[in-house]
Amino acid sequence: MMDVQFRSDFDVTLIDTMGSDHRIVQAAKVSTLGAESLEVGESEGLISYLMRNRHGSPFEHGMMQWMISAPIFVWREFHRHRIASYNEESSRYKQLAPVFYNPPPHRPAKQVGKPGHYTLTNDGQRASLAAGDMQRIQFEAYRAYRRLLSEDVAREVARQVLPVSIYSTCYVTMNVRALMNFLSLRNAPSALWEIRQVAVQIEETFSAAFPQTHAAFVAAGRVAP
Amino acid sequence: MMDVQFRSDFDVTLIDTMGSDHRIVQAAKVSTLGAESLEVGESEGLISYLMRNRHGSPFEHGMMQWMISAPIFVWREFHRHRIASYNEESSRYKQLAPVFYNPPPHRPAKQVGKPGHYTLTNDGQRASLAAGDMQRIQFEAYRAYRRLLSEDVAREVARQVLPVSIYSTCYVTMNVRALMNFLSLRNAPSALWEIRQVAVQIEETFSAAFPQTHAAFVAAGRVAP
Amino acid sequence: MMDVQFRSDFDVTLIDTMGSDHRIVQAAKVSTLGAESLEVGESEGLISYLMRNRHGSPFEHGMMQWMISAPIFVWREFHRHRIASYNEESSRYKQLAPVFYNPPPHRPAKQVGKPGHYTLTNDGQRASLAAGDMQRIQFEAYRAYRRLLSEDVAREVARQVLPVSIYSTCYVTMNVRALMNFLSLRNAPSALWEIRQVAVQIEETFSAAFPQTHAAFVAAGRVAP
Amino acid sequence: MMDVQFRSDFDVTLIDTMGSDHRIVQAAKVSTLGAESLEVGESEGLISYLMRNRHGSPFEHGMMQWMISAPIFVWREFHRHRIASYNEESSRYKQLAPVFYNPPPHRPAKQVGKPGHYTLTNDGQRASLAAGDMQRIQFEAYRAYRRLLSEDVAREVARQVLPVSIYSTCYVTMNVRALMNFLSLRNAPSALWEIRQVAVQIEETFSAAFPQTHAAFVAAGRVAP
Repeated sequence: MMDVQFRSDFDVTLIDTMGSDHRIVQAAKVSTLGAESLEVGESEGLISYLMRNRHGSPFEHGMMQWMISAPIFVWREFHRHRIASYNEESSRYKQLAPVFYNPPPHRPAKQVGKPGHYTLTNDGQRASLAAGDMQRIQFEAYRAYRRLLSEDVAREVARQVLPVSIYSTCYVTMNVRALMNFLSLRNAPSALWEIRQVAVQIEETFSAAFPQTHAAFVAAGRVAP
Repeated sequence: MMDVQFRSDFDVTLIDTMGSDHRIVQAAKVSTLGAESLEVGESEGLISYLMRNRHGSPFEHGMMQWMISAPIFVWREFHRHRIASYNEESSRYKQLAPVFYNPPPHRPAKQVGKPGHYTLTNDGQRASLAAGDMQRIQFEAYRAYRRLLSEDVAREVARQVLPVSIYSTCYVTMNVRALMNFLSLRNAPSALWEIRQVAVQIEETFSAAFPQTHAAFVAAGRVAP
Repeated sequence: MMDVQFRSDFDVTLIDTMGSDHRIVQAAKVSTLGAESLEVGESEGLISYLMRNRHGSPFEHGMMQWMISAPIFVWREFHRHRIASYNEESSRYKQLAPVFYNPPPHRPAKQVGKPGHYTLTNDGQRASLAAGDMQRIQFEAYRAYRRLLSEDVAREVARQVLPVSIYSTCYVTMNVRALMNFLSLRNAPSALWEIRQVAVQIEETFSAAFPQTHAAFVAAGRVAP
Repeated sequence: MMDVQFRSDFDVTLIDTMGSDHRIVQAAKVSTLGAESLEVGESEGLISYLMRNRHGSPFEHGMMQWMISAPIFVWREFHRHRIASYNEESSRYKQLAPVFYNPPPHRPAKQVGKPGHYTLTNDGQRASLAAGDMQRIQFEAYRAYRRLLSEDVAREVARQVLPVSIYSTCYVTMNVRALMNFLSLRNAPSALWEIRQVAVQIEETFSAAFPQTHAAFVAAGRVAP
């Protein structure tokens, strides 16, 4: 029996950060202090001022980096954020693992209304209904994938049978300004539920690494400067 | 019987261009002529000089725009080219049409050798073998998709069963410099076969719209300046 | 007597545009219509919807291109807009013409208050006072520049004496989304007076070429989507 | 007597780095190892392979950050590198210090030949000749600047008399891929002498922080991947 894993969660591992709230203050202070800006102290007030007045460039000197595992349909949205660096698992160069996403029962999955104006509600059934069908297709698709590989069909051809709900892993590096733009769009009510779960985890790492900047972002209505 | 379409080709429709070989010459000539650069004539020699000497910025003033239909696994590579603008069909907001990619018989599909060092050969069988399995999975996946939609499962959930070989349509706008970088990587022997077929069509529109620039790009070994 | 020109205005020449309000609608409609989006008609309402809801990407498929002459201190601000393409007159490769900027009498030039909180008022004197001193320095600097050139000092060395108020000419290509970001910051009360004069002229070409988009931008409070 | 400082050198202070040669290997290995890439060891061979084969994206996960002081005419070239983050001293918000660049005696300053084809030679005289004239203009310009400020002319107006050889300080953050592109163009024989002196210092910090990547860059002919 083929071992296929069905998941409803996402991995967000913080790898590294560069800079801090203090660094953002230093970079902003170069405008009035020049080289002496390296000597300034912290200033939550200045960060708040920059945020409210759309002085976005100092926030680019803070960087964050993660390794993230998420389904391909999440990556499809993520990669549209162009001011970022990505390296992803390759289905040309490796056999993808049989790990698939299934919507959990609490995922709002019932569509009500028209495109552009629809809302999703959680009726406690639709997500499970979908997960059932999905698992069957995911299982069949992965079996076909493996059979094709066993016949020496190229990975890059065989993978064409796989659904967009298969997991993939990616390194992501983003500056804090681009990150706030990402969070404003993806940790928001209109965002796809799944990318929002990823964004929530990312935002936790952000608020831990840049607490003053995060607080100012929230206070300013979650609009990226 | 559900109508599912299997295709092996790609649509590349040129929508618009801005500029020309002449414009690139004008933009380059501003460095030595200032505002009089608007009056200069064409110069194939200058274009060739710019290309060989990595003066890339003048090529950014030529633009091209297409509407392209290709499978999602092609878009996944395409969208990694960040210096470009994209708008794509949305599986959140519309029901995707049942159009799927199948590798044609002449697509090299047999993998020989190790990852990073493998080659693909066309043994006349593997592509057809793959296409057979694919069609079955694509058909089943689309049937599940339709069934879920009929149960009012949200489009954005139901589409998770669909394979990466389903077609999607995208508007793409790119400047000529970024385009040459795209072509240098994607109309090349190491490129994924399918994206190369798209790149070949794009390159035809490029050589028609910017013939001198295209000729210089080819003469310079297909390296983007 | 050396012929030095003192100016207080800026040249903005529209060279080309690509796309239109209609094109932006087409690009937006691909999300729900796929390839049929090419057939849709105009829709001022959709443009307004996109603007209000921060759906910025369709606006990237409209392009504008100008040739602009402005003092170097204006270019220093302009070039910080990185999502744009520039080619500029080179003081390494050509002798710069003796054309210098002087603030006109109506330019608010009296500083009142502290950095970050100062305001500028027009007292009818300060701009003229400044222009007087400027002309003397500009004249002396250009005379030194010419003398150095006559001694075969390299252009790229001799130009180091020239003030930031000397004019330079640049080709600029920008998509409509980036353009709206530029206008939101540079045709605004907090902007440098001189770059605002340039931005006002640019905005006129924008409103002529993309009237519905421009109207929606204004209606949405001049915030770029 | 007004204190004006004449300098011929440039300050490059490394502030921070993120990542390492090892990190670049990890990011590259995600393509074949997925999440297990975090466990791989160093690999100088892989870095060399990536460099030679134009696999540039892994190098974007290494970051460097400096504070740099250089004349405005150097910043004018630097800021054309758009894939980078900058915050600079503002002559709108602060009084610029009287620090000016003068070409040192060993700076090749005699122009021989035509634009586009000229060469510069060091005849032991031209740089000193230029420096003499420059100092006079720089001194006069700064005196005019101070006089205007003392009359409450706005900083942003008064600074228009200042030459492009005045120093300014900037925070610069750049990823390693963009950095190699910068170095390939700016630490090169065709580069402006002054920006090359800055680039040489930057390259020293790069080779110290990413020694394997730097060695591979040099071995690959100093072409950015």
